[in-house]
Amino acid sequence: MIQTIQWTDSGVVMIDQTRLPLEEIYITCRTYEDVAHAIRAMIIRGAPAIGVAAAMGVALGVAASADFATVCDTLAATRPTAVNLFWAIERMKILHRSLSALPPDLIRDRMIDEAKQICVDDIAINESMGRHGAPLVPDNKTVLTHCNAGALATAGYGTALGVIRAAVASGKHIDVFADETRPFLQGARLTVWELQKDGIPTTLITDNMAGHFLKSGRIGCVIVGADRIAANGDVANKIGTYSVAVLARENKVPFYVAAPLSTFDFTLPTGAEIPIEQRAPSEVTQVFGVAIAPPDTPVQNPAFDVTPNRYITAIITERGVVRPPYTEALRELMLT
Amino acid sequence: MIQTIQWTDSGVVMIDQTRLPLEEIYITCRTYEDVAHAIRAMIIRGAPAIGVAAAMGVALGVAASADFATVCDTLAATRPTAVNLFWAIERMKILHRSLSALPPDLIRDRMIDEAKQICVDDIAINESMGRHGAPLVPDNKTVLTHCNAGALATAGYGTALGVIRAAVASGKHIDVFADETRPFLQGARLTVWELQKDGIPTTLITDNMAGHFLKSGRIGCVIVGADRIAANGDVANKIGTYSVAVLARENKVPFYVAAPLSTFDFTLPTGAEIPIEQRAPSEVTQVFGVAIAPPDTPVQNPAFDVTPNRYITAIITERGVVRPPYTEALRELMLT
Repeated sequence: MIQTIQWTDSGVVMIDQTRLPLEEIYITCRTYEDVAHAIRAMIIRGAPAIGVAAAMGVALGVAASADFATVCDTLAATRPTAVNLFWAIERMKILHRSLSALPPDLIRDRMIDEAKQICVDDIAINESMGRHGAPLVPDNKTVLTHCNAGALATAGYGTALGVIRAAVASGKHIDVFADETRPFLQGARLTVWELQKDGIPTTLITDNMAGHFLKSGRIGCVIVGADRIAANGDVANKIGTYSVAVLARENKVPFYVAAPLSTFDFTLPTGAEIPIEQRAPSEVTQVFGVAIAPPDTPVQNPAFDVTPNRYITAIITERGVVRPPYTEALRELMLT
Repeated sequence: MIQTIQWTDSGVVMIDQTRLPLEEIYITCRTYEDVAHAIRAMIIRGAPAIGVAAAMGVALGVAASADFATVCDTLAATRPTAVNLFWAIERMKILHRSLSALPPDLIRDRMIDEAKQICVDDIAINESMGRHGAPLVPDNKTVLTHCNAGALATAGYGTALGVIRAAVASGKHIDVFADETRPFLQGARLTVWELQKDGIPTTLITDNMAGHFLKSGRIGCVIVGADRIAANGDVANKIGTYSVAVLARENKVPFYVAAPLSTFDFTLPTGAEIPIEQRAPSEVTQVFGVAIAPPDTPVQNPAFDVTPNRYITAIITERGVVRPPYTEALRELMLT
């Protein structure tokens, strides 16, 4: 099993996702600033994994007796789109407040335990999503996925790739087409790598081939993860998700989003309010440090896009599968 | 002005498009086999440029007294999709047949002149397409283009980029968004490079961002080239074109194809009959020789896709602008 992130006595150990698949290197974050750097530099990425990292970062800060507000603010300022980051920090804040009467050693232990619990919970949540999602995956067809919503994007097992893993475990004969997912190449570098480890047949395509294969009839469904889902079911996810969703609907291929409840932001009525991170131009103009465009080329680099709810066939959560109309269905899901 | 391909006394000189934009290197093809290699290796690419190269390759073969059928067959076997290749070889064959009674020296001179004429004609054809297409380009908006259908894809001026150049020359205030166009990166490497030389403001995006920006409202129209157009107006063009066309229609943005009549294949009733080239997996798994995926990753690498005519707002040719229904409109165009 891939160890994306782990609490250890010497700090928070993460696999360095900027070096995969060429090198399998683990780094140790010894301070909350190290964790903030790792999130910003995408050493760790994927909404649920970022949430776990942030919780562990808060625990490191508390263990080092750093100013609590500064710790939380620093971690919250790393990346704007994935709401799991803020969800995890908020959970740690609420616990911290409730512990204020206790001695510092006990507070530290309880905060560390909470961060470790968020990590353990995340895997169980993904397994539950897998159970709910597996029946939706058509047998004897190809599943298309975008970016990496796998073990590497979570504490383990994965959201979208968790559903694929559960479908395979249930005996379905499927293979996977992985969009390479420029500019950061999460599909080529991470999804292919982790599905190969599991022996799930995976074919790499460039992002602009997805439409061609959706039109060809071989794709049975699309499954992706999410970075933030608004109250109406609009989904912010890795740039290019919107395009795949439109192309799926145009070709009558079901389009599924797999996301834990910690990815939902019920304070936002629609996806239009979700902040979209702009990242460095060098991510687009260079690949592993090799220039692929003339120097000083102007670039746009939005890291995410928003897929309107009308393109989404269903959202798979740990509590069950949600279908349109999403505003009502999600409200109901949260009440049960 | 960019010199894509030129007949010289020492051979056919081409700018090496595999090295741009990092290096501006010119290679000289001294034999028809050199030209065949240059086409296969994409040292020269773009349907009209391939046509010019093939004609010059035939002329080189004739000048070297090589077996004529072998020359033509070798050049025809380089790449399967762009019909301009076969169109140019056919034009050279017809001339060659008509010259059979002449002495070899005269045949050689006439064949060389014909190849040079195809090159000269191509620029005039592109300028004519520019005049017809420029009025279609919305003012004060961004034009989205995919791949490189510019001076580098032709003898000069370009098809899609020729229309953009003509729109700028006519005083319109436009800028360009260039899809990087994986796997070969013609957009990042070639389109950005040649539009920068002309001072036309150009922003580089990854292919999977096109949908996001089409949805944003800033794109006034899409203009692309073509590698082969069937009798019903279905268009084979660089992989990813179909996706952009679907996303354009979904967002009510006009989608234009600019192509000379030599790109039309009236022997094929629909795009379903157009042969689609599959290229080497290494184009997807490596960027400038740097691995971006695990070793031996299975890959699909179709170099082209087919955009059904229903997504195409109009086709811009050197004889005028053609609109649906295409079968009838194209038949009429060819009769005028």
